[in-house]
Amino acid sequence: MSQQNDTTVNTTPMKASQTAGKQKFLQLGTIQHIDVTRNPGIVPVVDAMAHMAFSARDLNRAADIYDRMLKDTDCGVILTLAGSLISAGLKKVIVDMVRNNMVDAIVSTGANIVDQDFFEALGFKHYVAEDRLKSGLYDGELREHALDRIYDTLIDEEELRVCDETTQKVFEAMEPGQYSSRDFIRALGEHLDKTGGPKCADSIVYECYKRDVPIFCPAFSDCSAGFGLVAHLVNRGDQPRASWDGGKDFYELTQLKIKNPETGIFMIGGGVPKNFTQDIVVCAEVLGHDAPMHKYAIQVTVADVRDGALSSSTLKEASSWGKVDTVYEQMVFSEATLAFPLIVGYAYHKGAWKNRKAKKWNTLLEPAAVA
Amino acid sequence: MSQQNDTTVNTTPMKASQTAGKQKFLQLGTIQHIDVTRNPGIVPVVDAMAHMAFSARDLNRAADIYDRMLKDTDCGVILTLAGSLISAGLKKVIVDMVRNNMVDAIVSTGANIVDQDFFEALGFKHYVAEDRLKSGLYDGELREHALDRIYDTLIDEEELRVCDETTQKVFEAMEPGQYSSRDFIRALGEHLDKTGGPKCADSIVYECYKRDVPIFCPAFSDCSAGFGLVAHLVNRGDQPRASWDGGKDFYELTQLKIKNPETGIFMIGGGVPKNFTQDIVVCAEVLGHDAPMHKYAIQVTVADVRDGALSSSTLKEASSWGKVDTVYEQMVFSEATLAFPLIVGYAYHKGAWKNRKAKKWNTLLEPAAVA
Amino acid sequence: MSQQNDTTVNTTPMKASQTAGKQKFLQLGTIQHIDVTRNPGIVPVVDAMAHMAFSARDLNRAADIYDRMLKDTDCGVILTLAGSLISAGLKKVIVDMVRNNMVDAIVSTGANIVDQDFFEALGFKHYVAEDRLKSGLYDGELREHALDRIYDTLIDEEELRVCDETTQKVFEAMEPGQYSSRDFIRALGEHLDKTGGPKCADSIVYECYKRDVPIFCPAFSDCSAGFGLVAHLVNRGDQPRASWDGGKDFYELTQLKIKNPETGIFMIGGGVPKNFTQDIVVCAEVLGHDAPMHKYAIQVTVADVRDGALSSSTLKEASSWGKVDTVYEQMVFSEATLAFPLIVGYAYHKGAWKNRKAKKWNTLLEPAAVA
Amino acid sequence: MSQQNDTTVNTTPMKASQTAGKQKFLQLGTIQHIDVTRNPGIVPVVDAMAHMAFSARDLNRAADIYDRMLKDTDCGVILTLAGSLISAGLKKVIVDMVRNNMVDAIVSTGANIVDQDFFEALGFKHYVAEDRLKSGLYDGELREHALDRIYDTLIDEEELRVCDETTQKVFEAMEPGQYSSRDFIRALGEHLDKTGGPKCADSIVYECYKRDVPIFCPAFSDCSAGFGLVAHLVNRGDQPRASWDGGKDFYELTQLKIKNPETGIFMIGGGVPKNFTQDIVVCAEVLGHDAPMHKYAIQVTVADVRDGALSSSTLKEASSWGKVDTVYEQMVFSEATLAFPLIVGYAYHKGAWKNRKAKKWNTLLEPAAVA
Repeated sequence: MSQQNDTTVNTTPMKASQTAGKQKFLQLGTIQHIDVTRNPGIVPVVDAMAHMAFSARDLNRAADIYDRMLKDTDCGVILTLAGSLISAGLKKVIVDMVRNNMVDAIVSTGANIVDQDFFEALGFKHYVAEDRLKSGLYDGELREHALDRIYDTLIDEEELRVCDETTQKVFEAMEPGQYSSRDFIRALGEHLDKTGGPKCADSIVYECYKRDVPIFCPAFSDCSAGFGLVAHLVNRGDQPRASWDGGKDFYELTQLKIKNPETGIFMIGGGVPKNFTQDIVVCAEVLGHDAPMHKYAIQVTVADVRDGALSSSTLKEASSWGKVDTVYEQMVFSEATLAFPLIVGYAYHKGAWKNRKAKKWNTLLEPAAVA
Repeated sequence: MSQQNDTTVNTTPMKASQTAGKQKFLQLGTIQHIDVTRNPGIVPVVDAMAHMAFSARDLNRAADIYDRMLKDTDCGVILTLAGSLISAGLKKVIVDMVRNNMVDAIVSTGANIVDQDFFEALGFKHYVAEDRLKSGLYDGELREHALDRIYDTLIDEEELRVCDETTQKVFEAMEPGQYSSRDFIRALGEHLDKTGGPKCADSIVYECYKRDVPIFCPAFSDCSAGFGLVAHLVNRGDQPRASWDGGKDFYELTQLKIKNPETGIFMIGGGVPKNFTQDIVVCAEVLGHDAPMHKYAIQVTVADVRDGALSSSTLKEASSWGKVDTVYEQMVFSEATLAFPLIVGYAYHKGAWKNRKAKKWNTLLEPAAVA
Repeated sequence: MSQQNDTTVNTTPMKASQTAGKQKFLQLGTIQHIDVTRNPGIVPVVDAMAHMAFSARDLNRAADIYDRMLKDTDCGVILTLAGSLISAGLKKVIVDMVRNNMVDAIVSTGANIVDQDFFEALGFKHYVAEDRLKSGLYDGELREHALDRIYDTLIDEEELRVCDETTQKVFEAMEPGQYSSRDFIRALGEHLDKTGGPKCADSIVYECYKRDVPIFCPAFSDCSAGFGLVAHLVNRGDQPRASWDGGKDFYELTQLKIKNPETGIFMIGGGVPKNFTQDIVVCAEVLGHDAPMHKYAIQVTVADVRDGALSSSTLKEASSWGKVDTVYEQMVFSEATLAFPLIVGYAYHKGAWKNRKAKKWNTLLEPAAVA
Repeated sequence: MSQQNDTTVNTTPMKASQTAGKQKFLQLGTIQHIDVTRNPGIVPVVDAMAHMAFSARDLNRAADIYDRMLKDTDCGVILTLAGSLISAGLKKVIVDMVRNNMVDAIVSTGANIVDQDFFEALGFKHYVAEDRLKSGLYDGELREHALDRIYDTLIDEEELRVCDETTQKVFEAMEPGQYSSRDFIRALGEHLDKTGGPKCADSIVYECYKRDVPIFCPAFSDCSAGFGLVAHLVNRGDQPRASWDGGKDFYELTQLKIKNPETGIFMIGGGVPKNFTQDIVVCAEVLGHDAPMHKYAIQVTVADVRDGALSSSTLKEASSWGKVDTVYEQMVFSEATLAFPLIVGYAYHKGAWKNRKAKKWNTLLEPAAVA
């Protein structure tokens, strides 16, 4: 191949000349993140749900199980994230979990962590889309204005290209070697730290960096960072580079399970983060460790159980695989923007986290266990 | 760490002593794969759907678009797979697509390719579960018998451990270096070839190996192969090893887009395979190539559009991101076991593939473009 | 009130002057009904599904149960219909069931029977809507052209008003008295018969009239006939009139259960038709008859089980109410246009109906049991 | 027929001897109804949702539209109810709407009003079911203990038979004649009033009776009252009786639309209540009145839009039929137990109802407009 050694992310999308015209789509303002710490009124609402039926009762039980996880101070809490959650206004819920020792590790799609959280940390915003845009009939026009749509939310593609490019720059500055996604994401957090902190009030990547909470993206090339990885790869050509070793992700998360056997998982959506996190129990066993199943497990999802997909597979089914215990498991059938703030707000105001210490799981993985 | 250099996958799950008792759960026989090539009667049924409403009309249009993709012989067809499709009896549908030049690349969850297809190629089977097992109330008992459940299907965990172990053995035998998931999966295909071919009638991994059809699993550590990767990693300790470079996956699939710009995508479910494949258009652009959007796009899914997740995001929405053209796009709201055989069976018996040559995309990526 | 005794349905909707302009929306032609009797190729496809998983296996089992219902010649088969099925192209499937003694009674939403089947019998058609209309953004324009939309299908509101008016005329001609919906629908069938038969190839209302198959619409005022009922009521003022006695519906359907205790139900969608038909077992018991539960029960639905609504309530749940036996019950998670033709086509070509006689259940209810 | 004139509902279900054994299923206590009037903390949570995405933003907009309906004091508010809402703990939400002039008419499935609300007013309760019962595997056992299951809730069938019987007694005491469901339900309310009021804290039937809020069940025979109607019919034989004239339901609700043209609809679920209420706009037009479309419309539902059924048909689609205006319409994709308390709680604490007077719509229909 003949790439020059100055390949960078192409930050000039096709129709950048139309930047001015795009403002007409951005009049409804930006997504603002809900702050559950200011809403103690969530507690009596969730308490009342205990005596109702259907999703309300399920939500109450899930909130109660999360509260139990936090009271069980030996238990490590792993949060898994799938779906567009940060762009939907749920960033501060997660940051508050990190700040208050309510979560010990995060396993996520790349989009939530890089395209959305790191993106906002760079000073960019998500925009509220007009209702008519949800029809799909204006997507060609949005394309012309370099605006990307996520259902009812807009992203400025030019800003997203800056995010892509920034990941490349961070990766270029790393020592050549094989890294887990956790390593790369810590490097993004370090980048924020060295450049004056996030350019917005809250950042998951930054907060986790400061508090030694590991973040894994087991499909790390499937996001903005993937563009950075590829641009870096092309730029280096035959020279050594920083590469993503996806096997290390699985190894590291399994090590955490081995070192802290009692675990609970809090899943938003399903997908790779759910499966990957459930699988570490088996992986520990495969490596000869008698790790117990995840003791607690809750999931918020709208996936239908009848298509047989993993995203909707019940937590009982996971117990047949030896992954999840069934005493404290609960699925909540709800779109995440409704259920997630109620569950976390409930546990926050119940306060069990006050007796819980930061587990700083990143420190369990240092120095890098495997070269 | 103190790993010995003979670490292997632990193939003795907890309750292997109860192997005999497990037979009572396996009385209903094995999953058998539907053969659409023997069902020309699909064509008039799908034709009739053109004049109906709802999912029937959508399915007809999707089948028609797939037929157009195949008639457009310059168009490269990428099949994306999410959900438990092989265990559900859809393996032969995919193998027949490969055999008859109806697909040029596959992007899949790891489970479909390794845990299910490669697993069957090793001579193992999926079992039909009794209806009562779907309740979840017997999952503890299944666990005791080392039987894993996927909704209404059972897998023998001991056999799955052999699959895990085999992936490790194959990876151990590879030259140390950084590989894409495509490289690893070709190695699995080569292993089958060298050991007498698949121990079952049909295998996606084997057929793709023989026909130079690349298979990518962009979350490759999230499957049976992940156990092999980790066991290999632990086994080698500080020594060089074969590692999965996830960035290479994205690079290679993008190279295919660059070398064969006209593409159509046929998506079963959503998840990482859908997003990853849509993203190569942007990645090509990021690398400075003016790749066109995917010209054709069809998706079979039951995901609800209103949760904002990628799995259900409309193909129109993807066009705002510059990924998918909107002239020939169609989503079909159906569980895959119903819609997928009808769509493929329709296109098979329409016969457009007869004028289509094997693109052998693996050859476009050899010798390995990047060290 | 001061109604004159010549009140009729107002057949001049607001924008009738724009009739010409509406043609531009009707270019894609009319809905055409799938004919499963010409598709013996359905049988091997459904047979293959027996060995698959998820919805395919469920569909195979439902088709098998329907075949068993037909072989069990003592069993009365009740078909329940919810959702816009006739407008979706499923009319001929149902008519063929009636013609071939594959169904003994129909319980339906009013829309399917009156607004859609009787409407077509009057010579009107349903139209295929362009894809863009599904966005909802053109509904104001459709309103201006007096076109009604059902998702991806259009109806000419002026023609629908003629249907409303015709029901009124038929009701005006009936002897004053209290009638079940079955009585009214037979009157509509008789009207078709006296006016030269249906003005289209197939009509459920007409075919059932000719073959003494009762049709019930337990929410009969909730359809085109409701407009007729109200116009007739207003027209008659204080004079005697034909009125709908909803209690008689329940009484009559229960009488059929009492006179033919062995029954099976084939449900498309849920809603009032499902609940009403399940309830006749309890009603028979309430009246002191020891009627058995429905022996066979199959349902095709996309309703999610987790919202606790009746439409999605499992057939097992119905057994706790003493309504449905659980030996032969199967739900199929599919939109009806995909699954219904496959199930009926399968049973049609298996041919069990050939040994089955017309039960002519209307004759069991004549002369009217209760004044 | 030879019915004696003392036919009554058969209140002795098959297995009443096992009454004692049923207690083991009823240990988890009774359903308790959420009280939103005590939860002002709902307001800031719903306010925060305005700036989020997906269902949260939709819920905020729906709550805002409901608040606008209440501020628009000319607007009549019609609440439609489908799904098992009272058994799910939502009774008090609805009673508080009635008490505080937040609703002017209710259109419901019969189950919510008779089998569940009137049932509780007779002093009976709904019970919390154990999680394992949701599997369906215990429904046979529940049947033996005369316990009916609604997903995760239990009802004592013997108590339900008392409810059936009570409706019969009330109907027996009515003057022979033709009644709307509204008339019958008022008679149930009057019965409660004459017998000392409801035997529980809150009752929709009772509260509406006292406050002249009409309740319609357009499929009135499809519930506990249906058993009463049939038993009464059988009991009277050829003698005059109280019968349900379903056409009057449609006539009366349409009269309310004609007398109070400005209306908003608040729909929980879809089904007959949704369709019936939307249709009154057309019915008014059919009768020659130029009634405007429903000015406001909100719906909470989990029904999928892609099956083309009415329950999920968008409110935009309803505008093509001339039923619903599109300026203030919003669907919320959520199970009702989560969204309904938040929407009503928000509007309650915003307080617009304080400037609103009781419309007492029952008085608009008295004396009965049509004999």
